Amino acid sequence: MAKNKKKVEAITSMEEDFAQWYTDVCTKAELVGYTSVKGCMVIKPAGFAIWENMKNELDRRFKATGVENVYLPMFIPESLLQKEKDHVEGFAPEVAWVTHGGLEELQERMCVRPTSETLFCDLYAKDIQSHRDLPKLYNQWCSVVRWEKTTRPFLRSREFLWQEGHTAHATAEEAEERTILMHNIYADFCEEELAIPVIKGRKTDKEKFAGAEATYTIESLMHDGKALQSGTSHNFGDGFARAFGVQYTDKDNTLKYVHQTSWGFTTRMIGAVIMVHGDNSGLVLPPRIAPTQVMLIPIRDDAEGVMDAVNALEAGIKEKGIRVRKDLTDKSPGWKFSEQEMRGIPLRIEIGPKDVAAGQAVLVRRDTAEKMIVPLDQIPEKAAELMETIQNDMLARAKAHLESHIFDARTYEEFKDIADNKPGFIRAMWCGCRECEEKIKEETTVTSRCIPNEQEKLADTCIYCGKPAVKMVYWGKAY
Amino acid sequence: MAKNKKKVEAITSMEEDFAQWYTDVCTKAELVGYTSVKGCMVIKPAGFAIWENMKNELDRRFKATGVENVYLPMFIPESLLQKEKDHVEGFAPEVAWVTHGGLEELQERMCVRPTSETLFCDLYAKDIQSHRDLPKLYNQWCSVVRWEKTTRPFLRSREFLWQEGHTAHATAEEAEERTILMHNIYADFCEEELAIPVIKGRKTDKEKFAGAEATYTIESLMHDGKALQSGTSHNFGDGFARAFGVQYTDKDNTLKYVHQTSWGFTTRMIGAVIMVHGDNSGLVLPPRIAPTQVMLIPIRDDAEGVMDAVNALEAGIKEKGIRVRKDLTDKSPGWKFSEQEMRGIPLRIEIGPKDVAAGQAVLVRRDTAEKMIVPLDQIPEKAAELMETIQNDMLARAKAHLESHIFDARTYEEFKDIADNKPGFIRAMWCGCRECEEKIKEETTVTSRCIPNEQEKLADTCIYCGKPAVKMVYWGKAY
Repeated sequence: MAKNKKKVEAITSMEEDFAQWYTDVCTKAELVGYTSVKGCMVIKPAGFAIWENMKNELDRRFKATGVENVYLPMFIPESLLQKEKDHVEGFAPEVAWVTHGGLEELQERMCVRPTSETLFCDLYAKDIQSHRDLPKLYNQWCSVVRWEKTTRPFLRSREFLWQEGHTAHATAEEAEERTILMHNIYADFCEEELAIPVIKGRKTDKEKFAGAEATYTIESLMHDGKALQSGTSHNFGDGFARAFGVQYTDKDNTLKYVHQTSWGFTTRMIGAVIMVHGDNSGLVLPPRIAPTQVMLIPIRDDAEGVMDAVNALEAGIKEKGIRVRKDLTDKSPGWKFSEQEMRGIPLRIEIGPKDVAAGQAVLVRRDTAEKMIVPLDQIPEKAAELMETIQNDMLARAKAHLESHIFDARTYEEFKDIADNKPGFIRAMWCGCRECEEKIKEETTVTSRCIPNEQEKLADTCIYCGKPAVKMVYWGKAY
Repeated sequence: MAKNKKKVEAITSMEEDFAQWYTDVCTKAELVGYTSVKGCMVIKPAGFAIWENMKNELDRRFKATGVENVYLPMFIPESLLQKEKDHVEGFAPEVAWVTHGGLEELQERMCVRPTSETLFCDLYAKDIQSHRDLPKLYNQWCSVVRWEKTTRPFLRSREFLWQEGHTAHATAEEAEERTILMHNIYADFCEEELAIPVIKGRKTDKEKFAGAEATYTIESLMHDGKALQSGTSHNFGDGFARAFGVQYTDKDNTLKYVHQTSWGFTTRMIGAVIMVHGDNSGLVLPPRIAPTQVMLIPIRDDAEGVMDAVNALEAGIKEKGIRVRKDLTDKSPGWKFSEQEMRGIPLRIEIGPKDVAAGQAVLVRRDTAEKMIVPLDQIPEKAAELMETIQNDMLARAKAHLESHIFDARTYEEFKDIADNKPGFIRAMWCGCRECEEKIKEETTVTSRCIPNEQEKLADTCIYCGKPAVKMVYWGKAY
């Protein structure tokens, strides 16, 4: 077990240094790698397979609501980016510019898309003529670039993967309905697949997307008590349509502007999975998105009957629709256990000559380290049952963590005390003015996370200025 | 039927102008669209869904051979691109350069990847230390950029989608084996899924990939008799490994260079599907990659029993695992027929009040226009059977077309005559020297397509110079 311990000891404990623990997990679980391209990560097989599982399930949910996938160019001419005033102000400072194509200088420079509202508008302006062309429910899976100064794997990278949905509707009501629909899909997906509970709400004007009328967000809470914006849906009203001239002829033969939405979900959610579920042995993956759900580890694979039992188990478990693998490398069993733990594989099955003789094997849950001795013929059934149990228990634990880290502040003194001493969300009343938000951020580094759908009246006045309060807001320090 | 005819007449006939016919199909079947980004296409839902089907099936075949998906940065620093001499010469003239990130000029400019050999080498140099780290079988699905002067949808675009596999092996034999394995996967995929027969062979040194020791290609023949390079697999030997210092410690404790391969398949194959199978009514899709395989078209959907029959058929056909849709728009039946034809949907089912009364419906094959009257209760079974029949018949027709467009030339006079008058492949002997290839291209616009695996001795001497011949080569005019 010496090798085993050594490997586990190689990651910093999360209590000691959460940021370093996070980076260690990303690297030791082989989720990311690096090249000489600064600020950009490589997503390695173990990380990319998680993204593929997320993507497949989200894509299925999108398509069930009529969404169609497309692919638009990665370049945006500067003049196009500038058409919507708020939007260009929000993005121009952080884009990468292409100035030369081949050996020639471009007549107009183009940025690599930081997001594609402007391109979708450009397309929609050409493709939408009549009410019969509506709605357009397009989505694309692609990479985007934002020239960040400081980067962290998954959380903040100069290039990241995401999906961006862009829809156009005949009416304001339909656009709002679609915005909320996608907001709910994101929230359900996080709970059901990632076992991450979220707070649902609207962003304040200060925090909303550049060019949006309203931004809806889901916010999740990491193990260190910091918040992570986890998926946003924007209602643009007809702002972009007016800037880009996206009009249609309605049934009454009049020309109208379309109403648009966009919504995005990114690889940063791999970071959320790490920081919500991980522990000091490494990654802990919810079964639904785990690339490998069960790892079979033979102890002394040369002993009689061991490999026969392993192969029979593999076949039986696979038959249950479970993603199972066996570790047949020449590493020691302890090393293999440690690797399976580091990679967050939900269930490990250990089987050696003694187990074979006794007609059983040892099952070990990754999330609780609980060991179970189970008769061989019951293992496939038990593994299937455990996939459900582990998924549910992980969600329950994450919910308990979230709920125990929401604090109400009724005075600014209380607010500052919580901000300093209790990591988590702070619920507090707000007057609705941007200045208070800015002052709070300046003085405490806490930002407004969202105006939750479910409101409660904690006090009559704004936590900062004392003027009448209009909304209860979730505040927090954020990634 | 007036509207129907009008729509069909809107595309140029392929006999009149093949290039225009191709563009018309791309646009009218709504495969592509345009924005103000010059030289880059939008892949619209009907086009993207074909790509998704291709991608899913190819990805499945790759993974079955142990390939793992990853994602690498889209940017390549100039110094990295320059490390392998032949490679940089091949690609530098046609890349897009990023010179600014945000408001600052970059210290070193970076190109948007035209292909990622250099980045994979950069990663492998860090990640590969021991023989235990081999083989690495990585692949990524992404977009790449090549700054083309003249562009055509799918065939030649400044940005296109593809997969690029990059592998590293301990020995030259393993690398060659992997190169051939992927070459065969591409060929099988084209035949089995796209119903496109291909010629398999090696590229001449003149036509091989920049930096490769050997390039294997599959070449297909379009309806107009022009060839299309349809998927290439490269064996790099240890050339890149030496340039990038990718070494491993072998079992005997000595330091060795890895042997590498790469292989790619692109969205241009959507263009191949169009040009191999399409006709003057539009696109004709092989059932296996058709996003919609059967379109149900009610005639007078308000008449008693019609919609009941349509819904029952839809459920029954879906149960067979067939992708079926019903067209319930307010367009005329003729218009709907025409649209289904334009979009290449393999099978149409027409059902009106008279059909319902007679307990039957009309099935129309897209590939042959054959009409069949089938009892309602037999339709799901018949549809399933027709999916197989249509797929097989399409491949058989494409094979017959290919075989009837391969011509043998034994003298250069014969060669020139075929090049001028008979569109297709020319088989002719070659001495192995680059100069003859260049002269032939100059004089006839014909290029060497491949040195086929299956050789035949048509003559003793080179078709051009008369020196002793070493290989039989497939020649052709190409896209």
